[in-house]
Amino acid sequence: MNPALSEIGEQMSHLTGVRAIMKDIIETLRSGEGKHFLNLSAGNPVILPEVEQLWRDCTADLLASSEYGEVVCRYGSSQGYAPLIDAVVKDFNRRYGLNLSDRNVLITPGSQSLYFYAANAFGGYATTANGETTVKKVVLPLSPDYTGYGGTALHKETLVAYRPTIEEDKAAHRFKYRPDFSQVEIDERTGCVIFSRPCNPTGNVLSDAEVHKIASLAAPYNIPVLVDSAYGTPFPALNFTEMTPVFGENILHCMSLSKAGLPGERVGIAIGDEQAIQPLESFQTNLCIHSPRYGQAIAARAIESGALAEISQNAIQPHYKHKLEILEATLDRHMPEVPWMLHRTEGGIFAWLWFPELPISDWEFYQEIKKAGVIVVPGSPFFPGLKTEWQHTKQCIRISLTATPEEIETAMKRLAEVTDRVHAQK
Amino acid sequence: MNPALSEIGEQMSHLTGVRAIMKDIIETLRSGEGKHFLNLSAGNPVILPEVEQLWRDCTADLLASSEYGEVVCRYGSSQGYAPLIDAVVKDFNRRYGLNLSDRNVLITPGSQSLYFYAANAFGGYATTANGETTVKKVVLPLSPDYTGYGGTALHKETLVAYRPTIEEDKAAHRFKYRPDFSQVEIDERTGCVIFSRPCNPTGNVLSDAEVHKIASLAAPYNIPVLVDSAYGTPFPALNFTEMTPVFGENILHCMSLSKAGLPGERVGIAIGDEQAIQPLESFQTNLCIHSPRYGQAIAARAIESGALAEISQNAIQPHYKHKLEILEATLDRHMPEVPWMLHRTEGGIFAWLWFPELPISDWEFYQEIKKAGVIVVPGSPFFPGLKTEWQHTKQCIRISLTATPEEIETAMKRLAEVTDRVHAQK
Repeated sequence: MNPALSEIGEQMSHLTGVRAIMKDIIETLRSGEGKHFLNLSAGNPVILPEVEQLWRDCTADLLASSEYGEVVCRYGSSQGYAPLIDAVVKDFNRRYGLNLSDRNVLITPGSQSLYFYAANAFGGYATTANGETTVKKVVLPLSPDYTGYGGTALHKETLVAYRPTIEEDKAAHRFKYRPDFSQVEIDERTGCVIFSRPCNPTGNVLSDAEVHKIASLAAPYNIPVLVDSAYGTPFPALNFTEMTPVFGENILHCMSLSKAGLPGERVGIAIGDEQAIQPLESFQTNLCIHSPRYGQAIAARAIESGALAEISQNAIQPHYKHKLEILEATLDRHMPEVPWMLHRTEGGIFAWLWFPELPISDWEFYQEIKKAGVIVVPGSPFFPGLKTEWQHTKQCIRISLTATPEEIETAMKRLAEVTDRVHAQK
Repeated sequence: MNPALSEIGEQMSHLTGVRAIMKDIIETLRSGEGKHFLNLSAGNPVILPEVEQLWRDCTADLLASSEYGEVVCRYGSSQGYAPLIDAVVKDFNRRYGLNLSDRNVLITPGSQSLYFYAANAFGGYATTANGETTVKKVVLPLSPDYTGYGGTALHKETLVAYRPTIEEDKAAHRFKYRPDFSQVEIDERTGCVIFSRPCNPTGNVLSDAEVHKIASLAAPYNIPVLVDSAYGTPFPALNFTEMTPVFGENILHCMSLSKAGLPGERVGIAIGDEQAIQPLESFQTNLCIHSPRYGQAIAARAIESGALAEISQNAIQPHYKHKLEILEATLDRHMPEVPWMLHRTEGGIFAWLWFPELPISDWEFYQEIKKAGVIVVPGSPFFPGLKTEWQHTKQCIRISLTATPEEIETAMKRLAEVTDRVHAQK
């Protein structure tokens, strides 16, 4: 059978760019014919022994308690498992001097679901006060950003991203994206705003001032601003620069436990105004009733005890910071005398390289790098919603810090050779 | 803040009927002022000791294995956890003589998600061959049916349900709904078909012939037919009459582990043609990446070992069957000489009563029953998508078999008294 798809079915049956590349990567690895690839494409975090042990301990504790049956053998609240909500409220009130109640928290099956609910509850087709139909935009204020945002909007016309300005330090081979506020449009045609901080893929951490600016542009229109803190503090604490989470009336602070070692269990957490949380909770009720509870129950334990924040700070952050240092040192030492620019890696588990004079496309460059036994991810899928033509989108690659230090060093040396070769062909 | 909602946001912020009633029930229980209610409203299955022990044993096994980290500390495949898919394929091929491969199975975070994907990937706005916009319907061929279907369609005009014919055995106070094939429209305007078998709320089990008839009406148009087997065989095996699962080219056989003791973990399973599975899997990828894996890992163990089917048959089914017998015997003995009709409870965890001459609405009747210290669920929310006026929709109540046998007996006696009283007022 070959069932016909609705417009939404057509849209949602397209996988966003990076997943198409994942297919190529899987096939490459399978058809390797004994060739050993250095795989620097992975988004799957490293399983750190301390982190796995934490989740094992929490599970053993759950299993030893009489609570177990109530957790897995019962339906739960759509808002989330009460002990997890309580743990988050207490932790954030204490840590950041907030005044949250349980009505300010929503637990979702992963934060991707959260962006899906928001993109379609606040963005998409809407009726204006004078009865006209309009498309409320989901604004990504700084492109590139997380490729998964490309899959959230049920109507592709909803998503719009903006080209950033670029701060360059050519001598140091470093650069940083900044939102271009002369371009970004946040107004009555906006449904919501989403960005990741720290950013996947670039490692960018928008400054407090930039976040406040975005929030204040959105506030007069009651537009929710979703700050995707999947790599942020206090867990997984994958910020390598100081950063403060920003809370505020129209900010939805969104977290994930995937980089804190729990990707398999899909735990997303939103903190924000009750009136923004409420429609997302209802959406969740209709869509999937509630988030699975085992992940919530072990997360409640790990947050309540403080262990998750402690392990994030003392195990997860140093692990990736060490690898980043090796990557930077290797690139600085071995890269040829061609224009190459590393984004300031202020957080996250990826490095983002830009080759301003790359004579071939990012996809072709990716293929050349593969020939040298190294797999990275071409940069072009990380510009979801960008409507303008921009050569830059085909000049970048993403490198994962999940490989071992030795693999990263070897891979960066090989990348340097390939970079030299492809630029020489120009 | 009070963010504006899109059309989809408006639709999804409405909770389907039974959830509004749940709110009233929760408030009733809270404000009980010491009054003890017999709560026969619950959809939450009873935690049977054997069932909880099964899930505890599977968890202990997972925790003792080196697989644990790979399960919870890693992202997984969007299609589902491979050992669970393999277990389902093997079990169903052996049990029903099928020829399934792993491409025929999709795991979702609960079966509600599955109906959401299908209702919107196959149903909703679509473009016809000659470029016109049309609404592809999600057809519920027999109303009443599961109230949650009312929450699946992003556009309310998508859902359409049909009034059934009624087989009555007035002397025995029993009745049964049958699909009215003179009414049901399944044609090129149909996106997909959904029904539950056994049915929540009625306990109806559509006959094999009825299922084949529906599937054959849909087949010429390549319309997927989703058979919601949340109460079906082989697990939770909550069929009290013989039933055969029906497989076929355009049938998606949909299961849930919620009534097999795992509602907290949200495990839904779809079995069907690869071409129908594929767009649902992509929808899932974009929406939530993949289903949580702990529930999948313990389910794989329980299905692989045969323990889940065994416990379903030998513990879950007899538990509810016993309570049904008490309910039937008590009603038959105590109900007054007024028209009352119990739907043939061929499966499930609910009984469905129809009062053809009820002088008040189901909602008012529910309030009267509450005054007698008994909580049931009024029937009107169980007719999602029904567009025609039908007095019958306000003459039914749903009674849960999750209370204890003693509670059920007492509650049915009180119901008999209330029934007598409200009919006498006529």
